[in-house]
Order: sequence, then structure tokens, then C-alpha cells
Amino acid sequence: MKPTLRIAFVGFGHVGRRFADLLRGPFGRALRAAGVRPIVTGIATARHGTAVDARGLSASRAAALTRAGKPLSTLHRAPEVASVTAFIRQVPADVLIEITTLEPRTGEPATSHVAAALRRGLHVVTANKGPVAFARRRLRRLAARHGRVFLHEGAVMDGFPIFNLVERCLPGVQVLGFRGVVNATTTRILSAMEKGVGFEVALREVQQAGVSEADPRNDIDGWDAAVKACAIANALMDAQLRPQDVRRQGIAAITATDVLAARARGERLRLVARGRRVGRQVRLSVAPESLADGDLLAARADGALVLETDLMGEIGLSEGPGGVEQTAYALLADLIEISRAHRGRGVRPRRVRRSGRASG
Amino acid sequence: MKPTLRIAFVGFGHVGRRFADLLRGPFGRALRAAGVRPIVTGIATARHGTAVDARGLSASRAAALTRAGKPLSTLHRAPEVASVTAFIRQVPADVLIEITTLEPRTGEPATSHVAAALRRGLHVVTANKGPVAFARRRLRRLAARHGRVFLHEGAVMDGFPIFNLVERCLPGVQVLGFRGVVNATTTRILSAMEKGVGFEVALREVQQAGVSEADPRNDIDGWDAAVKACAIANALMDAQLRPQDVRRQGIAAITATDVLAARARGERLRLVARGRRVGRQVRLSVAPESLADGDLLAARADGALVLETDLMGEIGLSEGPGGVEQTAYALLADLIEISRAHRGRGVRPRRVRRSGRASG
Repeated sequence: MKPTLRIAFVGFGHVGRRFADLLRGPFGRALRAAGVRPIVTGIATARHGTAVDARGLSASRAAALTRAGKPLSTLHRAPEVASVTAFIRQVPADVLIEITTLEPRTGEPATSHVAAALRRGLHVVTANKGPVAFARRRLRRLAARHGRVFLHEGAVMDGFPIFNLVERCLPGVQVLGFRGVVNATTTRILSAMEKGVGFEVALREVQQAGVSEADPRNDIDGWDAAVKACAIANALMDAQLRPQDVRRQGIAAITATDVLAARARGERLRLVARGRRVGRQVRLSVAPESLADGDLLAARADGALVLETDLMGEIGLSEGPGGVEQTAYALLADLIEISRAHRGRGVRPRRVRRSGRASG
Repeated sequence: MKPTLRIAFVGFGHVGRRFADLLRGPFGRALRAAGVRPIVTGIATARHGTAVDARGLSASRAAALTRAGKPLSTLHRAPEVASVTAFIRQVPADVLIEITTLEPRTGEPATSHVAAALRRGLHVVTANKGPVAFARRRLRRLAARHGRVFLHEGAVMDGFPIFNLVERCLPGVQVLGFRGVVNATTTRILSAMEKGVGFEVALREVQQAGVSEADPRNDIDGWDAAVKACAIANALMDAQLRPQDVRRQGIAAITATDVLAARARGERLRLVARGRRVGRQVRLSVAPESLADGDLLAARADGALVLETDLMGEIGLSEGPGGVEQTAYALLADLIEISRAHRGRGVRPRRVRRSGRASG
């Protein structure tokens, strides 16, 4: 019989709910094909409470409840869980999916959640860029020390496998630098301005489309792109940088005149994140650039990344209109990788205390 | 001690020689890091003869000799080898690198070489599209039956890891279709024509740059793109098609007027290969298309491919100016994968008859 893979969620927003929906269909099939039987044993949220059930709870019912603004308590089958910290310590799980709302200035609470779960001996998957940008090396070492896996494919460019591509498909290659358009909000604002729409109107449209966060300042001032640049550099160039180290300029000062003048030159303004090796260091920057029409970064895409490598020249990666579903897929892809590790010890599963006994 | 990985080449043109040069440097380091000690034990060519040396020969000297138009016989330390067929049967090797000049209408002699090597129990790496387009499923099964690996990353888009990406980084994903610009010769001709250069002049420039084959008809009439479309469909969509099954139209009928009219519309003409699932079948076509400037396939690149998937939406892949070095890298990447399999049985290597005894 297939070993059970017990999945717990911290955070359960759009991505988590979409994952839950797809777990009943193609995601569940893909995990069973990878040799495990997935069950969801816990969900901890800030606004909808917590549910824990060691025998497995209905993730799609949890998605329906939270979508309706209702608490998860009706699915809870365990002693009370005092906090998210207690949840991470107690939930009867093999892997934690960390998808809380990120405070992009600090990388928290995601970074602390990931560390706590790894210390407890859980595998961790996150779609949060914070832990990768602020603490990747420390978290990877923590994972290795506990014989667990820490993966984060969804952190940048939704589900596009940029991290796994370099790790699994470009052996022996060194990434010398990169340039990327990695913030969808600014790309969409600048695209709209090319059609003559004003900045404020363009911003409102993007917010209404659900692409931008409620507070778009982190997008506009380039902070989101800086955090992603750090995540890319730390993961693909073995850097140890933090978003504070990125030379950063946003798009707030760009006017309709600037955008239209670029178009008249056959160019497009985009917020470009760049990284390059300078000696033994990696330098990062985020700033608006005027790109020629033939440039991959100016092509119609929600995100695009060009890696400059030593042995393979330029590698261009771009995603179509991305979003919740693609990020949910990134969680799946990472879980499938973890399933392989988990399956290996599936015959004699590690004993984990049930939350009931642990908190009793 | 690291197990030895004995490499033999059939075909030793630009790609093979570049590989040989790099084997002394970064490629050798990458293979040793993958846990093996690479040696080249044989090279068979059509124009420069054959060299076999069970203790390992100098690949960089072989490269220098063939570049100078000299025969390889001075490096030969074994009984005479009667033919390429005999070479494949006898060469004391663990893996065969198949990089002969392809007859793109038949996929030969590459397909026969790959089959013969797999039947003998060698791993096989090829950068030839022929075996993938004409016989992938059969060759994969042959490899599996003999417990060996057959890889072909260099067959399409030089070294860009399109095959490995889907296999290793998109688990659970089904490729529903693709569209790609996969023939560099036609892209360069059409780009030159956009600048007002005539077809014949553009073709000559491309030939002089060494991008096109000596006989460019297979590029111009879309056959090369059709063979690559087949390779993509067979490998990524589990199809069993042959180039003859591709609906095909080349670029010979395209005039300067057509190209400039497209530019006036803000578009670019490109030779586009397409594949899509229709029911349980896969339909393939190659034809010129007029692409909007914002389209990834119209962006400045030697090759670009957009995969349409079920769970991950659109995946855009593009390479920078590609060529011999990138294709050589594809051979390396595949060899590293094989090294992992080889290392596992490195302590007790399979006994292979020496060429000397086998032919004696």
C-alpha cells in the first residue's frame, strides 16, 4: 500500500484553496502516481481559525468554508491549538506548506514558520519569497541537518520551475548573472500606460484584477522585485544577500510622456531586476529600463527571466498569464519531489505524536 | 576511487571537437564532480578514420588532428576496425556519443547507430534529432530492456534543456500543445529581409556564418523544422509521429514585400512549428506565420518554444545566440545524468570485451 503523505497548511488564501480544489482531481492523481496517498491533516489561518484532524480532513470543504468567510472549527477533531506556533509544533504531518501573507520588509512570519517546521523534522514547501530572500542558506542547512527537504519553487514567477530547472537540468553550469521582469503589477501598469491610460487609473485596474496586493506600494517602489532578485541570487548564484542590499528604484516617477516616448522609439519601459557577479560578490539592482521591442523581457508575458551562464549562454524563461493556479502547481511539483524522499521510508513511517496526546 | 566513464564518439565534427576541448577544462571538472573519471576510448569518423585506445586517448589531440584535416590513425592503439558498425560493436566503452551528420529525410545513420549501441548494452547520448523524430519510443524501450539510458537533449534548441525540463521539473503536467521557432536559418533569413536584404543575399550570409548546412534546402522547405516538431511531439507529448506526418510549408515563396508589409503592421514573419492534441492524436504543422511584436516567438532569439500545459499554463523557453558550444553542453548534461547511473555500479563494473580480443 502507498505510504500516506500528511500535509499541513499554514496560511490558506487563494493559492491554498486552489490547491485544495485541485487535490481532489489532477493534483491528487499526480501525487498518487508519485507513490503516496496525500491527506490534509491540518490548516492554520489568521482569520478563519484552525482545523486539525489526524485522520485527514476535507480540504475542499475547508476551501468552501473560508471562501464563505466561515471558521474552520467545524472540521477540527483535536484538542484546542493555542497558536500558529503550537500548530506547527503539534500538527500530525510529514510536510508543512507555508503560504501565509508575507510582510515583504521582514520576510516574516514565513521565515520563522519554515525554521520551526524544519527544526521539528517536517519537510517544508513554501510559495513565499521571504524565506528565500532573507534566510535561504540557513534554512537549507537546517533542513539538511534534520534530513528533510526545503523547497520553494513558487517563490518567484509563480509556478515556472526556475529554481528546479537550474538545479536539475543545468548540471555543471554557473549562473553569471540575470535580468528579469518579475513584478506583474508594474508590468501591467506600464503596459496600460502604453495605451494612453494614466498611472492612477492603470493602478486601479490592476488592483481590481487582483494582480496587485491590497497595498501596492511594495510593487510600485520596487521592493517586491528586490525581494525576488534576492531570492534568485541566493538560490541560483549561491549569494547571501538581503533585499536591503539591492540598489532600488521604483516606477512612481514614470510619466505618460516617458512611456509614450519609449514607444515612439520602438521600446517599452519595464521594471527590470538585475544581478551579476563582480569578483566574488553578486550585485543586485532594480530599476526601470527602456527595452527594445525584440527583447525577451519586453515580450508579452507576466514574468520573464534571462539567465546568463558560463557553459550554456543565455537561457530565456517566460510565463504566460500566471496566477493562483500556477503557484498552486509549484506547491504540487515540490510535494512530488518530497514524495520521492518520503516514499523511500514509507514502509516504516516515522512515529509522530498525535496532536491530541502532544497537547494533552 | 571514482569509477571510470569510458566515452566513445561516432561522428566528430564541430560539436564533438568543441566537446573534446572543453573536456580538458570545465566539462571534465563537471564530470568528476558528478563522481566519474571520464576517458575517451574511441572516435569513429567518416572522413578522418578511426582511433581506439582502451586506456584512453587524447580527445583534444584528436580535435586538433581532424581540424587540420589529418587522419586519427596516429592515436589508434588496437587492431584494425573494419567499419563504423564494427566500431560500435567493439569499442571498449560505457557510453556512445552519436553525433554523425544526419540525413534528415531518413534519420540515418544516427538511428541505426543508436539502436546498435543500446543493443550492445552501451548508454547512448545523441545531439541528432533523427533518432528522436523517427524512432524515439522504440529506442527508449530498447534502452530500458538493456538497463541503459538513451538521452538526446541536444536534438532541439541546441543545449537548452527542453526535454529534461518537462521530465524533471514539470511532474504531473501534460503538454497539450506547443508552438516554436526552431530553425535558426529561416529566422536569420527573415530577420535579414526585415532590414531590406534580399532572400538570396540573406541566405548566403547565413551560410557564410556557418548557421545553415551546406545544403540549405532542408531549412528553407521546412523539413528541418518538421523533424524537430516530431522530436518535440514524440518526447514531450508521447506521440509516435514521423516527419512525413507533418503538414509542411517552407519560406521559399516569401518575398521582400511580404516581410516589409508585416513590419508595417508591427509584425514579423517566422517559420513556426506547431503541435496540438486533437482527441487522442497529435497534429503537427510547419508554416510561416505573421507574429505580433510582443509575441515571444518574435523576440530576438535563435530559438524559442512555448509549451501549452494543463496545470502550468504557458511555458516560454528561448535561447540566446546558440551553436556548437551549447550543443556540446547538452552532451555534457546528458553524460552527467548517465554518470549517476554509472557510478551506482561503479564498484563492480560490467565486464566489456576489449576491442582487441573481440576482433581477434
